[in-house]
Amino acid sequence: MVERVALAGADDPVLRDYVRLRDVQARRSLEVEHGFFIAEGEKVVRRALESGHRPRSFLMAPRWLESLADVLDDHDVPCYVLSEAAIERVTGFHVHRGALASLERPAPRAVDDVLATARRIVVIEDVVDHTNVGAIFRSVAALGFDAIMLSPRCADPLYRRSIKVAMGSVFWLPYARLDKWYEAPDLLARHGFQRVALALDDAATDLARLQVGDKVALLVGSEGHGLSPRWRTTADDVVMIPMAADIDSLNVAASVAVACWALREG
Amino acid sequence: MVERVALAGADDPVLRDYVRLRDVQARRSLEVEHGFFIAEGEKVVRRALESGHRPRSFLMAPRWLESLADVLDDHDVPCYVLSEAAIERVTGFHVHRGALASLERPAPRAVDDVLATARRIVVIEDVVDHTNVGAIFRSVAALGFDAIMLSPRCADPLYRRSIKVAMGSVFWLPYARLDKWYEAPDLLARHGFQRVALALDDAATDLARLQVGDKVALLVGSEGHGLSPRWRTTADDVVMIPMAADIDSLNVAASVAVACWALREG
Repeated sequence: MVERVALAGADDPVLRDYVRLRDVQARRSLEVEHGFFIAEGEKVVRRALESGHRPRSFLMAPRWLESLADVLDDHDVPCYVLSEAAIERVTGFHVHRGALASLERPAPRAVDDVLATARRIVVIEDVVDHTNVGAIFRSVAALGFDAIMLSPRCADPLYRRSIKVAMGSVFWLPYARLDKWYEAPDLLARHGFQRVALALDDAATDLARLQVGDKVALLVGSEGHGLSPRWRTTADDVVMIPMAADIDSLNVAASVAVACWALREG
Repeated sequence: MVERVALAGADDPVLRDYVRLRDVQARRSLEVEHGFFIAEGEKVVRRALESGHRPRSFLMAPRWLESLADVLDDHDVPCYVLSEAAIERVTGFHVHRGALASLERPAPRAVDDVLATARRIVVIEDVVDHTNVGAIFRSVAALGFDAIMLSPRCADPLYRRSIKVAMGSVFWLPYARLDKWYEAPDLLARHGFQRVALALDDAATDLARLQVGDKVALLVGSEGHGLSPRWRTTADDVVMIPMAADIDSLNVAASVAVACWALREG
């Protein structure tokens, strides 16, 4: 059962997991070094717990205690209770639907394990924006692909903002981070994946006309530069979503949603 | 030719168009009352000008003067020049790619004019999030639909954040705001549109199996509640994007991208 701890103020050192939540650089080193991540919002906190992630502590305003009571009471960790104004002083911003949890960061999945069991995957290269990473997870999960692979430089799916935009799908959709960017295309081929690069390239096939086999890896690049030449030129197919005149491109997350839909199993 | 004005400080009253850009409530009344909107970032400022919007003034750090020189010099308005730190004090946040423009808010298009000329449109109901409105504009423009109609309560496409996420497509994609929410389905019918409601409804048709006619209006609802019963039950078709197990829904902007792709002209 959680221990409800009423704190006198926002500067109590027990709150160190929750400080300056909008400072991306500071958070990255803090969370990775100490092996935890933050879930924000009643629904996301609930999903984190229901998917088996182990809490270190909770921080919330009094009114969230009751609505989360059923899941809180399964855990033997402190629940710090502060006013919403005091929580804002700790975290540095107004926490909408103000419940937070600090949870143990799970051990990363092995790349080979994910690739051995998935049949339809999205592989994202250097997508550094947490909102885009979260949006990609949400769409990939909703549209029934099996897993996501991330290039070494992609943003962290367990960063608070990624989790929130993903509506918690990062908690159960399998994913792994590739440790070798250059070898990734070969690795995908060894696991039997048809590598389909999504690119705005005049020579590309219209996405609607792609013939897909049993194991498909959709490769997508960063917002700014798209896929690297290495990943694009080694792909088995290069496909494009035809654009209307005067438009540069779809957002990367919208592109992934369209492509997952177009390549769905009939 | 713009008049380059070096200001002594961030509190000069000539900067009133640019204050507290993150305060959504304050900005809404300020911009609507005074008939202007703000474009943020070099690329978006350029697109606003190239699409014929008339500037009131510019505000930027010295390094953006040169890269925007070709478009700035066509306009006979002041360009306020401040350090990036001073701009942050005016606006309340760090302006990435720090060029800003204040532009005349164009007169709204007439609903009937837009409906009379468009053949494929997206109609959004009560989407109050500026990021989602912007993302919908970007996808609709990229995927070749003709126009967007907004219910009375939708967020402003000319709010800074909407424009930025839309990559400036709000500047040229025709749109209009419906003034009568209840009558909107009848109005669409009178203009000959097949009203296609996108909803997570067990009785809905799979989006992939919809037969579409010559004039199509795709109706989408808010993030939280989806379409109202009024708009959903009066539609000619109700379609769904089938979801994988355990997933509530796609993000509304991702849904629009998928639906525009699925309903594109072959």
